[in-house]
Amino acid sequence: MAEPATAAQAAAPAVPQLKDELDIVIPTIRNLDFLEMWRPFFQPYHLIIVQDGDPSKTIKVPDGFDYELYNRNDINRILGPKASCISFKDSACRCFGYMVSKKKYIFTIDDDCFVAKDPSGKAINALEQHIKNLLSPSTPFFFNTLYDPFRDGADFVRGYPFSLREGVPTAVSHGLWLNIPDYDAPTQLVKPLERNTRFVDAVLTIPKGTLFPMCGMNLAFDRELIGPAMYFGLMGDGQPIGRYDDMWAGWCTKVVCDHLGLGVKTGLPYIYHSKASNPFVNLRKEYKGIFWQEEIIPFFQQTVLPKDCTTVQKCYIELAKQVKEKLSKVDPYFDKLAEAMVTWIEAWDELNPTGSSVTNGKAK
Amino acid sequence: MAEPATAAQAAAPAVPQLKDELDIVIPTIRNLDFLEMWRPFFQPYHLIIVQDGDPSKTIKVPDGFDYELYNRNDINRILGPKASCISFKDSACRCFGYMVSKKKYIFTIDDDCFVAKDPSGKAINALEQHIKNLLSPSTPFFFNTLYDPFRDGADFVRGYPFSLREGVPTAVSHGLWLNIPDYDAPTQLVKPLERNTRFVDAVLTIPKGTLFPMCGMNLAFDRELIGPAMYFGLMGDGQPIGRYDDMWAGWCTKVVCDHLGLGVKTGLPYIYHSKASNPFVNLRKEYKGIFWQEEIIPFFQQTVLPKDCTTVQKCYIELAKQVKEKLSKVDPYFDKLAEAMVTWIEAWDELNPTGSSVTNGKAK
Repeated sequence: MAEPATAAQAAAPAVPQLKDELDIVIPTIRNLDFLEMWRPFFQPYHLIIVQDGDPSKTIKVPDGFDYELYNRNDINRILGPKASCISFKDSACRCFGYMVSKKKYIFTIDDDCFVAKDPSGKAINALEQHIKNLLSPSTPFFFNTLYDPFRDGADFVRGYPFSLREGVPTAVSHGLWLNIPDYDAPTQLVKPLERNTRFVDAVLTIPKGTLFPMCGMNLAFDRELIGPAMYFGLMGDGQPIGRYDDMWAGWCTKVVCDHLGLGVKTGLPYIYHSKASNPFVNLRKEYKGIFWQEEIIPFFQQTVLPKDCTTVQKCYIELAKQVKEKLSKVDPYFDKLAEAMVTWIEAWDELNPTGSSVTNGKAK
Repeated sequence: MAEPATAAQAAAPAVPQLKDELDIVIPTIRNLDFLEMWRPFFQPYHLIIVQDGDPSKTIKVPDGFDYELYNRNDINRILGPKASCISFKDSACRCFGYMVSKKKYIFTIDDDCFVAKDPSGKAINALEQHIKNLLSPSTPFFFNTLYDPFRDGADFVRGYPFSLREGVPTAVSHGLWLNIPDYDAPTQLVKPLERNTRFVDAVLTIPKGTLFPMCGMNLAFDRELIGPAMYFGLMGDGQPIGRYDDMWAGWCTKVVCDHLGLGVKTGLPYIYHSKASNPFVNLRKEYKGIFWQEEIIPFFQQTVLPKDCTTVQKCYIELAKQVKEKLSKVDPYFDKLAEAMVTWIEAWDELNPTGSSVTNGKAK
């Protein structure tokens, strides 16, 4: 029944959207003072903190936040031998948080990311924008020149087929960074002073068939739609590579989204990325990736998933198979990675048995 | 030899770029008073005015502009029987200007488009931005999340393959519109008051394999790279359809660019689009297109050009053949259109014989 708002309703602050359906996942090795700045936006939500490195260290979380924290001992205890698929000494460990969450949506952010301002000087509620992105459809089959047609003041332009205007569900929302851009080590070395100051007021769907470099610094996704493909791979301790965790997840996710008819958006929201990581350390972590990506990307561009891959899990297991077949010749690392991809899915299914699933009432 | 600038050089106004290598093509039925506002930006360039409708009418051009003007009688005289491929009573006639130009670059603009302002209030030199877009490479094979990596203050982000950073030559620069957005008749009818006020400070490459709705209102291209594919089709007088001229050119152009490894950019610059056309008139012109595009777009999405199509002309003739084969069943109009596409190429080659070509010294 349509009724006017009561005075109390009108005066009440906006209810944080999806409060009980979204977890914020933060990988860290230090005290989470950065949360102070995010308090107005994050405090209503539940946090999953994945403590990397020395588990005996105590991570301080500012008062008033609702959180659960997992260190390496917890991961080993919960996953047993399957813990081998979770990276150590690398922010790739964050994907453990995706796995233990019981919510429909995840927002993940790095602990060196602060609240950015829009050109008018207003603080940007990054989470609110991610939620907008995830709750409105994507348009991967045809490009809309006025960007996201579902934003206020925008629409589909002349020549956009009407049959495609319903769009598809959005699985991933990829946000950007003001100040320190997400450059690789060679670019950091060449342009140490470059800062991103350009605020681009756009959200857009990355078209079907197009891959992109997904950064894990400021990222949200629908766990129910794509969660099992959000594996951040084997990086860091004992591995020959780092800083490709989010890239790997992005390539896999995009291929699975394209196959299943799901959308990936990029653009708003911006966060303020405060500190460039050390380019020399980064170069050591990245250099194999810089070679390997020249073969990995064509591999993903050519990947075709069979029609009977109707779930994210099935797609991902098939992808693991193809990685083993086609990338092992690049380096034996990919053999190990392909096995870890399978272990990841086994662990995911163990922690997320069919029938329990998400808390938003749409349990499958 | 590296020398400092002289005082005179430093004080001199910026030389308009590509002054002798770019023509501005304007289709019109009225006096070109709108050029007054563009004078600071357009006056150094040569204009090609294509007068539509009654050829006995005199079109006034403000003093001081260097131009040539063609009316229907001129088109008939120059092309003879091949003039049948040039539309009448429709702005599609503009493509005649592309054909008679002897320059390497074309910028085309509608006469209801004025100078827009950026958020700081500065007048936007649309032509200058188009030239920037055309002279810097495109990146159609992988998406860069910070948009055009060749703009100041931007670069390729982490995870962008180094082998793809050279980019490919840019053939098309598609600009946007503030104020009146380029909506189809149904959207105009539903949202008569919607205005585009969002200034998106971005240029981006439309990925390979993705089609887009190309609007002819504010468009620039490299004639040498893609000119013969910029045919605006059969519209207006005697035809069952209008307002799909630029769309048709956009679909064809994008397919040819993708095949030949050329880039298409969209985004900046904005022009100020002053006046919404009549939605009722538009609906009459468009309604067949609204049906047809549901079949045309899948056709273009599936089009494959054979390897021996190594020039734009060969690609376009092949496209005409496939249009005849596959779209004639949609409507006999496509038979006629396919024939006009062939006539267009014949006329193009007649006016642009191999060996003469462009004036920029790179004559082929």
